[in-house]
Amino acid sequence: MKLNEALLQIRPVDRTKLETVQNRINQQAKPPGSLGRLEEFATRYIAIRNRDTIRKKAIFTFAGDHGIALEGVSAFPREVTPQMVYNFLKGGAAINALARHAGADLFVVDMGVDHDFAEHPGLIRNKIAPGTANFAVGPAMSREQAVAALEAGIGFAVRAAAQGFDLIGTGDMGIGNTTPSAAIAAVFTGLPVAQVTHRGTGINDATLQKKVQLIEQGLKLNAPDRLDPVDVLAKVGGFEIAGIAGLVLGCAAVGLPVVVDGFISTAGAMIASELHPQVCEYLFAAHQSVEVGHAAMMEQIGQRPILDLQMRLGEGTGAALAMTLIEASLCGYREIATFGQAEVSEGG
Amino acid sequence: MKLNEALLQIRPVDRTKLETVQNRINQQAKPPGSLGRLEEFATRYIAIRNRDTIRKKAIFTFAGDHGIALEGVSAFPREVTPQMVYNFLKGGAAINALARHAGADLFVVDMGVDHDFAEHPGLIRNKIAPGTANFAVGPAMSREQAVAALEAGIGFAVRAAAQGFDLIGTGDMGIGNTTPSAAIAAVFTGLPVAQVTHRGTGINDATLQKKVQLIEQGLKLNAPDRLDPVDVLAKVGGFEIAGIAGLVLGCAAVGLPVVVDGFISTAGAMIASELHPQVCEYLFAAHQSVEVGHAAMMEQIGQRPILDLQMRLGEGTGAALAMTLIEASLCGYREIATFGQAEVSEGG
Repeated sequence: MKLNEALLQIRPVDRTKLETVQNRINQQAKPPGSLGRLEEFATRYIAIRNRDTIRKKAIFTFAGDHGIALEGVSAFPREVTPQMVYNFLKGGAAINALARHAGADLFVVDMGVDHDFAEHPGLIRNKIAPGTANFAVGPAMSREQAVAALEAGIGFAVRAAAQGFDLIGTGDMGIGNTTPSAAIAAVFTGLPVAQVTHRGTGINDATLQKKVQLIEQGLKLNAPDRLDPVDVLAKVGGFEIAGIAGLVLGCAAVGLPVVVDGFISTAGAMIASELHPQVCEYLFAAHQSVEVGHAAMMEQIGQRPILDLQMRLGEGTGAALAMTLIEASLCGYREIATFGQAEVSEGG
Repeated sequence: MKLNEALLQIRPVDRTKLETVQNRINQQAKPPGSLGRLEEFATRYIAIRNRDTIRKKAIFTFAGDHGIALEGVSAFPREVTPQMVYNFLKGGAAINALARHAGADLFVVDMGVDHDFAEHPGLIRNKIAPGTANFAVGPAMSREQAVAALEAGIGFAVRAAAQGFDLIGTGDMGIGNTTPSAAIAAVFTGLPVAQVTHRGTGINDATLQKKVQLIEQGLKLNAPDRLDPVDVLAKVGGFEIAGIAGLVLGCAAVGLPVVVDGFISTAGAMIASELHPQVCEYLFAAHQSVEVGHAAMMEQIGQRPILDLQMRLGEGTGAALAMTLIEASLCGYREIATFGQAEVSEGG
C-alpha cells in the first residue's frame, strides 16, 4: 500500500462503539470505573477490532544501522546490531523471552543493517540500505528511501491484518538509534536537544555531551521541515524508525491496535501521528522509558504509558509486557458478570 | 502455626543469593540494568524461592463485614459482601477473570461475613464472627479474635507452601473496609485521618466527611497503641484485614513471596510489617491504588508499586495482574542468553 493511500484510509475510532462497550462495562458487578485503565484498554481494543478476543499477536522488531554511530555515540560497538539480529533469530534475546511469555509471534525485519544476512525463516529481509548516512554531516537518507521504508512498514500491517493478527507491537534494534530518536523528539516537541537526549545503553557524561552537540549540528545543517514529517525522517531518522512509523500508520489504516514500545518506537509513532493525527486513536503506549525525552514525546502525542518499570532496552520488550495487560482487560470484559447476572445490589 | 512461632521463623532474604542472581542477569546480552524493575522482581523471587520457575500461584481473597458500615460509610449496602462472595464462587467477579488470566488458583475465605454460607468446594469457612463491631463506639474485635484471625492467615501460607504454591497474592471483599484501612493507615503513618481517607467504592463529599469524623472518633475512643500492632488491628481493623496480615506474615515465615493488592491489602501488610519489619523483603506491592492514603502506606512500608492503572476494586485484582509481570521477569531470567552464548560484543 502506498503512503498516500494509507493516509486516506485512516478513520477515527467509532464513538458509538466506544460508548456501547463502556456501557456494558458499567453494568458489570463492580463500582463504576473501578478497573481504571483496564476499562479504557478493553473499550478501545473492542471498538477498533469489533471483537472481544485476541486471536493472534505479533511483535515486529525492526533493525537498522546508523551513520551517526561511527561518531561514537553509543556504549556498544556497531557490530552489535547484526549480532543481536542473529540473537533474535536464535531465540536468545529479551524480546524472544517476553514475546513467548505474551504469546506473541516475533517478526524480525532487517530494514537497514550494515551486514548481509542469509535467508532465514525468522528474518524478513527488507534492507533499504546498509545503514543510514551520518546525519551530523548530511541527510540520513533520501526522501525516496524514507518513503520506501514507510511503505514497507505499512505493508507489514496490511499482511498482519490479512493473516488474522488482532494486536501488533513495535520494537527496534540499532546501535546508536537513541540519537536519531532524540533528534526527532527535539524537532516535534520544540524542546532543546539537551532536554530530550539521554544515555541510551549507558554512555558517560562526555559522550552524552558529544551526542547532544552532534544532534544540534545535524539539525542545524539539515534543517528538517517540522511540517513535513517525511523530511524529518529522511534528514535525521533511521530505517528501523521509518519501519516502525510505517507499521503504526498501516495499523491505523487497516484498523489494528498497535502497542508502541519505548523511546525509539515512540519516535516512529510520532512521525506517524504527525502524518495523520488520528493514528493516535489506535496507539497503546507500552511503557515509560528511562530516556529523559520520552515523557515529552508521550505528551506530544497525547499518550499515557501503561507501565513504568524503569526499562530502557527496546526490542519491543515493553510492548510484549503491555500486551498481556490488554489481554487481561479483555478477560475482564468477557467474564465479569453484570449486577443482574450476579444478583448483586447496585450502589447509589 | 502460632503467631509468635511465625514471627520467630522470619529471616532476612539471603543477600548472597540476591547477588548471585543479579550477577547472572548482568551477564545477559543487554545493557546492564536495562530490564529495570523486571530484574528486581526476578532477583527477589529467585532469592526467596531458590528456584526460577513458578509452579503454582494462589490468590487468597478474604471477606469480612464491618460494624462501621452500618453508619453508612459506603456507596454499597452491606448485603453486597455475601452477594460478592457468591459471585466469587460462581466465577463471575473481576478477580475470577483476572486470576484465570494470571493462571492463579483463587481461594475465597469467609473470615467474618455477616451471613451463613453453606459448605462449598470453593469456600474456606473460617468465620471469626459475623462482622466486626462498630469501631466508632468500641473496639472492632477482641484481642483474642485478632490473634485467631492472624493465625488463620498464617495457616493458609503454611498449607500453600506445603501444596507447592510458589507465589501468593492477597485480596479482600468487605463493604465498608476502606474505613478500617484508613484508620490503620492513620495510626502507622501518623498522618491526619483526612489525608489518608478517600471515596472507597464511590461516596460523595458529605459521606466522605462523615467517614473521616467516624474514624477520628474511633481512634480517639479506642486509643489503639501504635507500638502494639495487634492492638491496632483489634481496635480499628477487620477480620479480612487480619486474615491478609496473617497470610503476609505466614508467607515471610515459610519463605513465600507475596503480592499485596491495593489499599485494604496494604493495611494488612502494614500490620504484618509492624509486627516484623523483615516481612517487607517478601512483599511485592501490586499496584498504586486510587485511594489517597495508599501512597503514604507504600512509603511507610518501603514499597514501590509495580503497576499504576488507576484501579480501586480490590478483590486481589491488582495482585493478579502483577503476578503476570513477575512471571515475565522469570521468563527473561531463564531464557535470555549471556553475551558469550549469544556471541554479542559487550559495551564499555
